[in-house]
Amino acid sequence: MPDLPRRIKIFEEGPREGFQFEKGPIPTEAKIRLIDALSDTGLRHIQIASFVDPRRVPGMADAEAVARGIRVRPGVEYSALWMNERGLRQALDIPHLRVDGKVRLYPSGSFLRSNLQRTPEENRAKNVALIQTCLAIGVPVTEASISSAFGCNFEGDIPLPSVLAMVEEALQLFTEHGCTLHHLILADTMAWATPLSVQRMIGAIRTRHPDLPLRLHLHDTRGMGLANAFAGLAMGIDLFDASIAGLGGCPFAKHRAAAGNVCTEDLVSMCHEMGIDTGTNLEALVTASEIAQQVVGHPLPGRVAQAGSLSAIREKRRAA
Amino acid sequence: MPDLPRRIKIFEEGPREGFQFEKGPIPTEAKIRLIDALSDTGLRHIQIASFVDPRRVPGMADAEAVARGIRVRPGVEYSALWMNERGLRQALDIPHLRVDGKVRLYPSGSFLRSNLQRTPEENRAKNVALIQTCLAIGVPVTEASISSAFGCNFEGDIPLPSVLAMVEEALQLFTEHGCTLHHLILADTMAWATPLSVQRMIGAIRTRHPDLPLRLHLHDTRGMGLANAFAGLAMGIDLFDASIAGLGGCPFAKHRAAAGNVCTEDLVSMCHEMGIDTGTNLEALVTASEIAQQVVGHPLPGRVAQAGSLSAIREKRRAA
Repeated sequence: MPDLPRRIKIFEEGPREGFQFEKGPIPTEAKIRLIDALSDTGLRHIQIASFVDPRRVPGMADAEAVARGIRVRPGVEYSALWMNERGLRQALDIPHLRVDGKVRLYPSGSFLRSNLQRTPEENRAKNVALIQTCLAIGVPVTEASISSAFGCNFEGDIPLPSVLAMVEEALQLFTEHGCTLHHLILADTMAWATPLSVQRMIGAIRTRHPDLPLRLHLHDTRGMGLANAFAGLAMGIDLFDASIAGLGGCPFAKHRAAAGNVCTEDLVSMCHEMGIDTGTNLEALVTASEIAQQVVGHPLPGRVAQAGSLSAIREKRRAA
Repeated sequence: MPDLPRRIKIFEEGPREGFQFEKGPIPTEAKIRLIDALSDTGLRHIQIASFVDPRRVPGMADAEAVARGIRVRPGVEYSALWMNERGLRQALDIPHLRVDGKVRLYPSGSFLRSNLQRTPEENRAKNVALIQTCLAIGVPVTEASISSAFGCNFEGDIPLPSVLAMVEEALQLFTEHGCTLHHLILADTMAWATPLSVQRMIGAIRTRHPDLPLRLHLHDTRGMGLANAFAGLAMGIDLFDASIAGLGGCPFAKHRAAAGNVCTEDLVSMCHEMGIDTGTNLEALVTASEIAQQVVGHPLPGRVAQAGSLSAIREKRRAA
């Protein structure tokens, strides 16, 4: 039997991923309504916006208004995504946002070249500059993410040694600057992972760095999100990114769209049914998922919100 | 690392599950078109219809016309579902149908009582009568299925010992009548299974009967279909029911509907990406999945048909 963790931490990315991806304009108040609902689910980490160029990501033009407008619930950490010093300063301007520095590594040379117009050396220099900026301002640098760690639509399959090299680069950057790596995020950005490759990668990293806390960021484009999450759980992983209702992609669109992160309430349902504590209330998540669908105005891929939870069925039987 | 099988056999149930479930009438020729497309995918086992009371299942009123109308591809086994001698005789009337006797066990007493109006003893008597009828006609009895083996909306959680008792009942019935049990089907009819309960149940049965071939029938109502399939694969299971495009449920309907079986092309995609042979052509399955959507006239839950397969992305990169 697998060695499952007793409890996991979920990092909710639905608002940020969803508002970034959705085509239609979403009123600021609707975004705030969803985030406020998420604050009441027991989730402790919610990423609420991106401070990025609104010309490139129009859905984030109101990021500041959203961040300032939410009801701040004590005990919940709110965060935002940012990619440069301008975004970092915008985030720091919001008193209730938790701001951490994150180093970003790309094992796919093709992605670095064609999407970010950088060489590996230039990316390393960018990371060094980011760490220095953060430390100068007093922002802790605590996270590193490896994008498209399992495969990339531009590069194809990513060999495991390339990912292991990125792990070493991350650790070296942190050591050189006296920072502590709290989470190494393995991101299946373009949904190339399988349960087997998830387990192989975790195994390979663990062999070298047994105590490094690994966090999984799994997209569900080919329906393998929960299978990959289970593969991670079975290796003892207890840190997961997830997205309410599966926000962040639109598999119902006519085009062959990428899907969002693994759906929060579906992941929670699977965990609770296996006796794994998530610290969240599944029925409250189902409510938030319904709000997410209202906010975007179309069905979202999450399944438990449609089918109802097993705990709700048990409850009804007890009451009958 | 998990001990995955090298190859699996898939039992396609999409036509039978789908035509039975869909609300709107589907023309006989459209059904035949889908089955003919499935015949060209490499699938070796396709369940094409139910010979049941058309007043209860109107979508199966044309079962005979469908069964007679398909293009029979050598090497493919076509089968049908039937529940009584009348249905059995209808199936036997179609020369190209493979007809096997199947014993049905129900660990949920509530389901037996409220849906089939039977006691456990009456169900056992029904199974004995079915075996005797089959043997008298010369139909081999080869399969046993345990319905709602993981949980039941009527009964709630099903304790593992109740399932183990059904396994013993099945084996006893087969031994008593000199039949060989080819497949014991563990059916998660109402989608209560988790990867953990799948592995626990397989482990418990294997401890008692190490050589009994187990086959999984997994519904995807809460999005755990592939996770449960992976859990089975990791225990060496190599027999799976599946449903093209995820036919058999309509999660997009307003009501809280049950979903179909795990989606064939999504299961195949996961297997191929882990190096497991399925004997099928994924691109041909994607084509069949698109036909399934045309035939039912609305989106179906399968993801790979929407997102495109990873092998297609690799192919495009090679060609570029």
